[in-house]
Amino acid sequence: MNPTMHSHPATLLVIVGATGDLARRMLFPALYGLERDGMLPAELKILGAARSALDREAFRAEVEAMLSAQAAPGEAARERLLARLEYQTVDLSAAPSLAAFAARVKALRRGVVLYHLSTAPKWYGPFCAALAAAGGIDPGVRLMLEKPLGHDLASAREINDAVESAFCEDQVFRVDHYLGKEGVQNLLALRFGNALFEPLWNARHIAQVQITVHETVGVEGRAEYYDASGALRDMVQNHLLQLLCLTAMEPPSEFEATAVRNEKIKVLRALRPLGAAELADEAVFGQYTAGAIDGAAVPGYGDELGRPSRTETYAALRVRIDNWRWSKVPFYLRTGKRLAQRVTEIYLQFHAVPHLIFAGARAQPNAMLIRLQPEERISLLLMSKTPGLDRDGLKLSEVKLDLDLHNAFADVRRRGAYERLYLDALEGNGTLFVRRDEVEAAWSFIDRLLAARQALGEEPKPYSAGSWGPGDAAALPTRLGHRWRE
Amino acid sequence: MNPTMHSHPATLLVIVGATGDLARRMLFPALYGLERDGMLPAELKILGAARSALDREAFRAEVEAMLSAQAAPGEAARERLLARLEYQTVDLSAAPSLAAFAARVKALRRGVVLYHLSTAPKWYGPFCAALAAAGGIDPGVRLMLEKPLGHDLASAREINDAVESAFCEDQVFRVDHYLGKEGVQNLLALRFGNALFEPLWNARHIAQVQITVHETVGVEGRAEYYDASGALRDMVQNHLLQLLCLTAMEPPSEFEATAVRNEKIKVLRALRPLGAAELADEAVFGQYTAGAIDGAAVPGYGDELGRPSRTETYAALRVRIDNWRWSKVPFYLRTGKRLAQRVTEIYLQFHAVPHLIFAGARAQPNAMLIRLQPEERISLLLMSKTPGLDRDGLKLSEVKLDLDLHNAFADVRRRGAYERLYLDALEGNGTLFVRRDEVEAAWSFIDRLLAARQALGEEPKPYSAGSWGPGDAAALPTRLGHRWRE
Repeated sequence: MNPTMHSHPATLLVIVGATGDLARRMLFPALYGLERDGMLPAELKILGAARSALDREAFRAEVEAMLSAQAAPGEAARERLLARLEYQTVDLSAAPSLAAFAARVKALRRGVVLYHLSTAPKWYGPFCAALAAAGGIDPGVRLMLEKPLGHDLASAREINDAVESAFCEDQVFRVDHYLGKEGVQNLLALRFGNALFEPLWNARHIAQVQITVHETVGVEGRAEYYDASGALRDMVQNHLLQLLCLTAMEPPSEFEATAVRNEKIKVLRALRPLGAAELADEAVFGQYTAGAIDGAAVPGYGDELGRPSRTETYAALRVRIDNWRWSKVPFYLRTGKRLAQRVTEIYLQFHAVPHLIFAGARAQPNAMLIRLQPEERISLLLMSKTPGLDRDGLKLSEVKLDLDLHNAFADVRRRGAYERLYLDALEGNGTLFVRRDEVEAAWSFIDRLLAARQALGEEPKPYSAGSWGPGDAAALPTRLGHRWRE
Repeated sequence: MNPTMHSHPATLLVIVGATGDLARRMLFPALYGLERDGMLPAELKILGAARSALDREAFRAEVEAMLSAQAAPGEAARERLLARLEYQTVDLSAAPSLAAFAARVKALRRGVVLYHLSTAPKWYGPFCAALAAAGGIDPGVRLMLEKPLGHDLASAREINDAVESAFCEDQVFRVDHYLGKEGVQNLLALRFGNALFEPLWNARHIAQVQITVHETVGVEGRAEYYDASGALRDMVQNHLLQLLCLTAMEPPSEFEATAVRNEKIKVLRALRPLGAAELADEAVFGQYTAGAIDGAAVPGYGDELGRPSRTETYAALRVRIDNWRWSKVPFYLRTGKRLAQRVTEIYLQFHAVPHLIFAGARAQPNAMLIRLQPEERISLLLMSKTPGLDRDGLKLSEVKLDLDLHNAFADVRRRGAYERLYLDALEGNGTLFVRRDEVEAAWSFIDRLLAARQALGEEPKPYSAGSWGPGDAAALPTRLGHRWRE
């Protein structure tokens, strides 16, 4: 294998878990979108692999069904995508099956190969070992791994060690699909494409930051899986901490994998640990009870699970980044299921004016809102003169400078996160993937928090499905005179 | 007269020049607007004075005609306003007439009186002297003076000296009607009601500022008057330099006459003089030739005047404010008649990002636009990620965060400038009026510029009516790598 191979685009994509839920909902629709727009390398072959004993035709039929909402039968791009597909049955627990799989890959391979493991993470280590044993690893092999990467720091390390014994770090592409979202990348474009924000983006000017990832969905059908996880592991460890990193990091010298990830890990390492002493003041955990979402009655978490549980479906934290830029600025993180509204947003509130020259007027602090879901939007909340003749002095009103990015770029199709992530991984660009040190630093923070929660032994606070979370969460920011944005 | 009288609202408004063009277009419509909204003091009487020999009924009929576009006959507010009106014929050049006028005022007066001189400025001095001679000046008398306040520094000083020999400065209210505009006051609200802007509002972050006051009108019917004035005297000396002051001044400690005007005068005093040595590089003067506005042919300035002239109907300047905040920042001022578009705006361009992390992308410098006419609007020009899969690297597109203040406050009637100015002068609040030292500092700057122009003896550059001004003006900012906003 040519040693410069690692900079070539892959010509073979191997999806392990190719008949699973993620493949159906996200992966093949993304590949179809890329195919339709002519973005896939011409020579790319896609080898689906899963436990099911399918032949190539049956697999193609499964993929056709996955695309039924997007593409009519006979549509050209659909046919082109289907023509790329091959299938190999694989039982990841059986060495002979793995060996046959490795042989099949070898037969199909013409250059760089990208493996995408869309399986339970317990298989990541054994898969790497089997691949190495079959002589299937060289600089032209890349590995894309789905989250969750472990269940805690120890299990993440175990997986990472196993992967590292077979692959170099720059061959490994750990997915946090939030990083594939256009809106998340735009956060970096806003921060580092504008001279306007950087002078303000620090403790001197920012009073507080709120990162919100609220879902309306519950744990439908995944209750057992979710119960072993909870909001901290399922959302905070990855998505919320990644958003925190992108919001808080120093400007990297270039938009490139090492430079960006070196800045992100600095944020995670500067994150002040939350232990048992801090928990009562700095964290609130909740679990939803029966309620209503959009007028429809929905069951409580315990009912869905079929037994009582202490797993949190909601978490709100106040965290601190102990560096010069963010000293003393509270970062509020909150996420939960079965909440009133689906929203992902980053809200930065500036300090109040140091002195108001307009006697009798009131000025709200300025704020910036970067909304990622359900719509992409940037808003700046400013004070403007209240129109009028000011007989009691000039008064101020809050106004919103606003940009809906969907409207601003209405002629451009918004891409699914996996379209971007696949192209980047095929080309070997790791900027929007998570490095080992990031994963482990995030787990280290979460582990400590989980241990503290365990030690305190408190039940999660109940909140009605369809509400804004437990009442105690509302009080979390008020202790410092702040309020959640609603 | 009670010495605390100067803080009482006036109960008598005396408009000298009450049948003139300004009265018809602006003053009585403003008084009607205030009357309709119940903003005038209940006991206020309005004494109109002019050379015409009218009786009270004939004067009321004239005012009725002035209001015909606003108020139907018999409408209640119209009747209330008409009921306040009295009339006195006055010949400002005749002592007996002035004495009779003073006696009439004395007879009508019940408390504080506000004189508004809407006459040629040559009468200001004689008027004050006659009033003083008649014993008509005490702390309960206020004087509101229309622009132009003189024709140059010497004539302005002469007027101010004559006024000062009769009145204290805090009894004098010099009108620059731009200061009465809601949008101009909002500039102060934006600057000092938001913590977001002040850290950026200086040479470290702002690369250039442009203040534009473009008119589409010519000198219709006023050519002789205008020819003795020109754009520098008619627009720059007052409106543009006032906008410059409000844009550039330090935060005053309160929004109050002395504090605000102390900051404005500092800007004017820090304005670097433009003399003969600078003129070629820092200024362009123009005069319109025949052309078309909105598709209709319009004559050139010389044709309207009926003879050739060197008077400038267009001026563009690059000025500097020599203080710490604005060191080396060019302020571009431009104004003219018969231009393509009527617009009053302040445009601040920020420095470019010091280093662009996105290889291959291009970032426009950020900018803020505060538009005052024809509509009130605030816009922030930012760079955002160009949507897409970034196969050649992340690209940036300019987007506009925008607020139309008319839409934001659609339920509020926008007030004419004189509504605000009358109420303030009636109440004795001078914040939005121009102090003697400001007028004279502005003239001092303009005088030097006019003398330099005279010494160089250059003809104004011709520009077609309906264009954006002379071609040389376009080149003025390019010498420093800037461009006019269009």
